[in-house]
Amino acid sequence: MHRQMEDHRSSAFPAFTRSILSRLPHIVHQTKGEAFVFPATGSAMWEAALVNTMNPGSRLLAPRFGQFSHLFIQTARALGHTVDVIEEPWGEVADPAKIEAALAADTNHEIQGVLLVHNETATGVTTNVAAVRAAMDRAKHPALLLVDGVSSIASLDFRFDDWRVDCAITGSQKGFMLPAGLGILYMSEQALARVEQCTMPRAYFDLRAMRTNNAQGYFPSTPALSLLYGLDEALTMLLDEGMEQVAARHRFLATGVRAAVNAWGLRECAKRPDIASDSLTAVVVPDGHDARKVIDIAFSRYDIALGSGLSELAGKVFRIGHLGDMNALTLTAALGGVEMALVDAGIHVTLGSGVGAALTCWRTPGK
Amino acid sequence: MHRQMEDHRSSAFPAFTRSILSRLPHIVHQTKGEAFVFPATGSAMWEAALVNTMNPGSRLLAPRFGQFSHLFIQTARALGHTVDVIEEPWGEVADPAKIEAALAADTNHEIQGVLLVHNETATGVTTNVAAVRAAMDRAKHPALLLVDGVSSIASLDFRFDDWRVDCAITGSQKGFMLPAGLGILYMSEQALARVEQCTMPRAYFDLRAMRTNNAQGYFPSTPALSLLYGLDEALTMLLDEGMEQVAARHRFLATGVRAAVNAWGLRECAKRPDIASDSLTAVVVPDGHDARKVIDIAFSRYDIALGSGLSELAGKVFRIGHLGDMNALTLTAALGGVEMALVDAGIHVTLGSGVGAALTCWRTPGK
Amino acid sequence: MHRQMEDHRSSAFPAFTRSILSRLPHIVHQTKGEAFVFPATGSAMWEAALVNTMNPGSRLLAPRFGQFSHLFIQTARALGHTVDVIEEPWGEVADPAKIEAALAADTNHEIQGVLLVHNETATGVTTNVAAVRAAMDRAKHPALLLVDGVSSIASLDFRFDDWRVDCAITGSQKGFMLPAGLGILYMSEQALARVEQCTMPRAYFDLRAMRTNNAQGYFPSTPALSLLYGLDEALTMLLDEGMEQVAARHRFLATGVRAAVNAWGLRECAKRPDIASDSLTAVVVPDGHDARKVIDIAFSRYDIALGSGLSELAGKVFRIGHLGDMNALTLTAALGGVEMALVDAGIHVTLGSGVGAALTCWRTPGK
Amino acid sequence: MHRQMEDHRSSAFPAFTRSILSRLPHIVHQTKGEAFVFPATGSAMWEAALVNTMNPGSRLLAPRFGQFSHLFIQTARALGHTVDVIEEPWGEVADPAKIEAALAADTNHEIQGVLLVHNETATGVTTNVAAVRAAMDRAKHPALLLVDGVSSIASLDFRFDDWRVDCAITGSQKGFMLPAGLGILYMSEQALARVEQCTMPRAYFDLRAMRTNNAQGYFPSTPALSLLYGLDEALTMLLDEGMEQVAARHRFLATGVRAAVNAWGLRECAKRPDIASDSLTAVVVPDGHDARKVIDIAFSRYDIALGSGLSELAGKVFRIGHLGDMNALTLTAALGGVEMALVDAGIHVTLGSGVGAALTCWRTPGK
Repeated sequence: MHRQMEDHRSSAFPAFTRSILSRLPHIVHQTKGEAFVFPATGSAMWEAALVNTMNPGSRLLAPRFGQFSHLFIQTARALGHTVDVIEEPWGEVADPAKIEAALAADTNHEIQGVLLVHNETATGVTTNVAAVRAAMDRAKHPALLLVDGVSSIASLDFRFDDWRVDCAITGSQKGFMLPAGLGILYMSEQALARVEQCTMPRAYFDLRAMRTNNAQGYFPSTPALSLLYGLDEALTMLLDEGMEQVAARHRFLATGVRAAVNAWGLRECAKRPDIASDSLTAVVVPDGHDARKVIDIAFSRYDIALGSGLSELAGKVFRIGHLGDMNALTLTAALGGVEMALVDAGIHVTLGSGVGAALTCWRTPGK
Repeated sequence: MHRQMEDHRSSAFPAFTRSILSRLPHIVHQTKGEAFVFPATGSAMWEAALVNTMNPGSRLLAPRFGQFSHLFIQTARALGHTVDVIEEPWGEVADPAKIEAALAADTNHEIQGVLLVHNETATGVTTNVAAVRAAMDRAKHPALLLVDGVSSIASLDFRFDDWRVDCAITGSQKGFMLPAGLGILYMSEQALARVEQCTMPRAYFDLRAMRTNNAQGYFPSTPALSLLYGLDEALTMLLDEGMEQVAARHRFLATGVRAAVNAWGLRECAKRPDIASDSLTAVVVPDGHDARKVIDIAFSRYDIALGSGLSELAGKVFRIGHLGDMNALTLTAALGGVEMALVDAGIHVTLGSGVGAALTCWRTPGK
Repeated sequence: MHRQMEDHRSSAFPAFTRSILSRLPHIVHQTKGEAFVFPATGSAMWEAALVNTMNPGSRLLAPRFGQFSHLFIQTARALGHTVDVIEEPWGEVADPAKIEAALAADTNHEIQGVLLVHNETATGVTTNVAAVRAAMDRAKHPALLLVDGVSSIASLDFRFDDWRVDCAITGSQKGFMLPAGLGILYMSEQALARVEQCTMPRAYFDLRAMRTNNAQGYFPSTPALSLLYGLDEALTMLLDEGMEQVAARHRFLATGVRAAVNAWGLRECAKRPDIASDSLTAVVVPDGHDARKVIDIAFSRYDIALGSGLSELAGKVFRIGHLGDMNALTLTAALGGVEMALVDAGIHVTLGSGVGAALTCWRTPGK
Repeated sequence: MHRQMEDHRSSAFPAFTRSILSRLPHIVHQTKGEAFVFPATGSAMWEAALVNTMNPGSRLLAPRFGQFSHLFIQTARALGHTVDVIEEPWGEVADPAKIEAALAADTNHEIQGVLLVHNETATGVTTNVAAVRAAMDRAKHPALLLVDGVSSIASLDFRFDDWRVDCAITGSQKGFMLPAGLGILYMSEQALARVEQCTMPRAYFDLRAMRTNNAQGYFPSTPALSLLYGLDEALTMLLDEGMEQVAARHRFLATGVRAAVNAWGLRECAKRPDIASDSLTAVVVPDGHDARKVIDIAFSRYDIALGSGLSELAGKVFRIGHLGDMNALTLTAALGGVEMALVDAGIHVTLGSGVGAALTCWRTPGK
C-alpha cells in the first residue's frame, strides 16, 4: 500500500481493476455473478445489497442472534423495509427449521429476502448457511439469500455457488487483513437480474453505474487506491495460500484458543461446540465479574485489544479475534496477556494454563 | 499512514477522533455546526448531504456548468428529487442573477436547496459562492445552500461561516493530499436542524447515528483508520501552514500555469480570467486537434497524468491539476512534459516557452 | 527511516548532524569526550578504537570469556598488536583481580590498553565494568579501557563517565532497535588526546578527518542517511523513556525469561545469577541433546529466530534475545515457541510452564 | 527496504546472500573474480582494495584531475604507501600516454598498482579506462589497475572483464539509487590472488574472513540488512532494464543537460565534449560570480540540491547530478530551478532557454 497513487483514469488502469475484480470471486468460490468494491465499509454493503435488490417497502425475514444480525435488520428497517424477525438466544445461530416454517407460511411469497449473518462477531458463532439454503429450498420459496460474511469471508470456508447465496457482504479489515475502508459485495446472477428494475432511490451504491464503469475497467467515482493496492496484495497472498488452507489455518488456531478457554475453566458464549466460530471466540466471565474490567486491564497494562460484549452482552463477555494475519505465536502472546488481565481482574486462572493448552494443540511435530 | 492499526473501540480512541473532528472546521473557517468523516468518497457526500436534509421528492435548484455540477444534479434526481436546472455554457460559472430570479419566482418557497459546485473540476472555473449567497439573501429565500468543494476545500479560500454555506462536501484525495477513501461533510446549524425530522430513508449516511457515536469519540461503523491517520497529519500540515497561506500558494502556482498556457498561444476553457480556477487549469486544444492524443502521449511517453475533457468537452480540453502537494518545480516538470506532448501531437508550441513564462512568475528574488 | 534522502552537503544538514551527535552521549551518561557514528558495524568500531589510540605493535591485555571477547582480541592481533589473554571459562565474566595482577606485574607500563566486553552476547553474561576500572586504579596503571558495549549500550546501564571508559563501542542493531549498518564509538578525553599523535596507518576510520568534519556538522564521506534518520528517532524514543527506565525495563523482561528457563528445569550458560545478562539469555540444553536441533525447529516450524551457540558452545546452547523493541507479550510469544521447539526436539518440558512462570513475573497488578 | 529484518544467521539466509553476490557482477559485465559488499561507503572501498592487495609501503601510480582522484591518493598515502602522482588540470582526464611513460620508466616493476578514477564526480569527466589499460599493456607492466567507479558503476558502461580491471570500487548511493551505507568491491582473479599473502595489517576490511563467510552464504559481521534488501531490489530493476539500456538512458539524459548549459551560454568544467560525463555535469559560472551563491539560492528558494565546487573549484562550479532514479521530467524540474537560481544570482540567462533546449533533446516522437 506504500506506493505512489496512480491515475485512476489512465489507459493503464483497467488492467489493475480487472486483476482485482477477477480474483475477488475466488475467495468465496464464486463462478457466476459478479463482485464489487466500494470505498466504504462492510456495513455499507448491507445497504448496497438492499437498495439494488429490494423495492421500497419490501418484506424481509431475518433471524436475530447477536449485535450484527440486529444491525443488519436495523439497516433494512431504516431503508423502509418490513422485517419479520426470528429471535434466537445470543450464543445460538439461525435455526433452519424456523426459517423454513416462516417461508412456508408465506404462501403469497411476499417475503423478498432472507437476511443472514454467517459468522456473528458479537457472540463467536457460525451459522450453517448450507442448512439455511436447504430450508429455503424445502419451503420452495423464491426469496433472495443475503449473507453478511464480514467476519467469515477470506477466513472461513464460504461457498457462494454451492450455498446459492445471492448477496454476500464483507469489508477489507477482517480476513483481507487491511485497514477498514473498502466494502466488498458479491452478487449472484439472480440478484443482478433485480438491479435494473429495482425502484429503490439510490445513487452512491447504485450498481448500474458501477457495472457500466467496471466493464470498462474504471469506477464511477474516485476509487480508494491505497486500499485497492492492499487488496491486490491480499488477494495474491490468500489465493497463493489457497482458500481451503486459509480456512484450515483458522480452524487450527481456533482449536488452540478454545483449549485455552477450557483450561481457564471459563465457558464460551457459543452455546454448542459445533457452532463455535473459527475466526473469533467470545468468552463469558463468571457471574459477579465485569468483562469490561478485563478488557480495560488488558488494554492499559498489557497493550492487548480485546473485543467487548455488545448490547445485551455488555460486561458479560470479552472477545478474542483470531482471524487475518495471525499465527500461533501472536495468539500465544494474546492468550498470555488475557491470562494476566484475568488474574488482575480477580478471576482466578492458573498463569500459563491456557497458553500451555493452546501450545499442546499448536505443536506440530510432524510438520 | 504507515502505522499499525489501533483498536477503534478502545478507551484511547476518542482523543484521536476528537483531534480530527475539532480541527476539520478550521480548514473552511467554520465555527458553528459540525464536520463529519465517512469511509466513502466526495461524491458520496452529495448523497449524505441530501439524505439528511431533504425529504423525499423535494424541489431543488442548480446551475449546471460542467460535469461535476451535472453529476451533483444527477445524484439528487436519482434520490427522487426534482431539480430546476439553470444551464450555463461550460467554461462559465453560476450566475447569481439567474439564481436570484429563480428563487424570487418561487414565492411559495417550494425550493428546498440550491446545489452549487464551487470549483468545477471539469472546466477549471471557480464560482463566487459569496455572490450566490448574496443573491439568495436578496431573494429572501430560505433554501439551504449545498456546496461541492471537492476541488476547492483545503486548496482555495473557503468561508463556510461568512458565505453561510449549509452543507459543504469534499473528499480526501485533493486538497488533503491523501489517497481517496474519505468523504468529508460540513453541516451548518440550519442543516443539522433538519437531520432529526428528515424523512428520507437512509442508513449508512444517516447523521443521527454518526452524531451519537461521534459525541462519544467513536464511529458507527469501522472507520478507515489508515486514511484517518493520514488526515490527522494533513490537518497538521495545512493548519501549520495556515489556510490563507495555502490559498496564496495555490494562487501563486496557478499564475505560472496560466502564463504558460498563454505563452503556448492556447486558451483556457475558463471563459474569463476572473473565474479561472487556482486549483486546476483546463486547456482548449486548437480546432482540428484531439486533446485525447495529447493526454495519451503525455501518459505513455512522458509519464504525466493529465485530466481529460469530460462529456461535452471530450477531446477538446486537457486539464493540468495544480492543487495539493505540489510546488513550482513539480509543476515545471509537468509543463515540460505537456510541451513535449503538444509538439508530438502536432500542436505547435515553442519548447521551453511555457516553462519560461511560468518560471518568470515563480522566480522569487525577494524570498 | 522512510523518508526522502536529503542533501548531506547542504547548509541545513549540520543541524541534523549536531542533533545526533549531541544526544548520543546521553545514552551512556557521557559528559566529556565525544561520540562518533560511522557507516559500518559494531565490530568495525573495535578497529576504529584501536587504530586511533594504539601505535603499531602495542601490547594489550584482555580477558576472554566468549566469542565476542575472542573476536575483539583477534581484531587487535590482526592489526599487529600483542594481546596478553586472561582465559576465563565461557559463562564466566572478567575477573578484576586477575586484571589487577596482570597490570601490577607490568611495572614498565608496556600495556597500552585493556580490551573488555561488557555484555558477552555469546554466553549471556555481564561484566562489572566498574569493578574492572577499580582494579586498574588499584594497580595504578595508565592503560586505556576499551569496552565493547554492542549488546549492552542503549539496553543496560552504561556509565561512561563513572567507569572512566576510554573507548566504548556499539552498533545500531541492538539497543538502538535499528537495522545494522551504523557503528558508534564513544571516546574519552584521554582517548581523544591519543588520536593526533597515533602513528597507526589508517584512513576510513581516522578520527582526525571525522572530527574536522563533525565540527562543521558534516561527515568526511557520505553518511548512511536512512540509518541516521532511524538513529535520530531511536534517540528520541530512548531519551524520552529515560535510560534508567530503559535499563529497568530490560531487567524486568529478563527476570521473566530466567524464571521460564528455571521452570523448564534447564540451566543458563551464565555460571552465577549475579552475572546473568539482562539483554539476552543463553540456555544450556541437557547432555545428549543438540541445541542446533532446537534452533532449527524453532525457525522452520514456529518462525522464531533463536541465537546459536558460537564456537565452543556450538550445539550446547541456544540464546533468547530480550533487548530492544520488545515487551512482555512479544517475549511470551517467543517463550511459547521455544517450549514447542524443545518438546519437538525431545527435551521434556511442560508446555505452558515457562510462559506461566514468566507471566507471574510480568503481571503488574499495581500498574 | 521497508521490511521486517530477518535473522542473518538463519538457514534461510544464504539464498539471499547468494542472490545478491551472484548478480552484482552482471552490473559491470564481470565473469571472473568476485564481488563483495560491506556495511561502509564507497570511499571505504578504496581502503578495502588497498589493504587486501598492497603490502605496507608499496609504490603506486595515480593521475590526479579532481577531488576524488585526490582523495584516493590521500587514502593510499594515509595507509603508508608512496604514490607517484601525474597531475592533470581539473576538467581533464587521465592521460594514457603519461601513464604508459611512467610505467615504462619503472623497469624494476616497483609500482604495484595504478589508482584511477573512472568518473570524476568533482569535475564531471569520464576517463577512458580501456585506453589506460591499453597503455599499461604497451608498457608491459604488471601493476594492478584499481578503478574508482563510485559515480559510474550502475550508471555508465563499465567493462570489468574487457578492461581487465583488478579492483573496482563503488557505493550504494549513486547508480544503485539507494541511501548510502554499502560499499561494493569487485576483485579480479589477479587481485584475489594477492589477498592471502598480503601482509598489510587489517581486520574489518579483510577479504579472507569475508570470503570464508560468503562461501557459506553469510557475512563475518552483521550485514546492513535494510540496505541489502534495497540492493536486492535495485539489482532486479537494473538487470531487468539491461545495463546497455541503463547506460543509454544516462547518455540520453546527459545530452539534454549539456544542451541546457549551452543554451544558457555557460561552459562545462569538462574541457572537451568527448570526456563530458553522462552521470553529472559541472557548470562553470562566469568570472566575477560565486557558484556558492547559485547553490545557496537553489537550495533555500527552490529546494534543489546542487553539488558544490570542491577544493580548487570552490565557488567556480556547481554540479547537476543526472544519475540514478531520474527521468527527463525530474531533470526538467531541476533545470528550471537552476535557471531561476542563476537569474537570482545575477547571472543572465533567458528563463526557459535551457529547459527548452533540453526538451528538444528529450522529445521522443518515435517512441
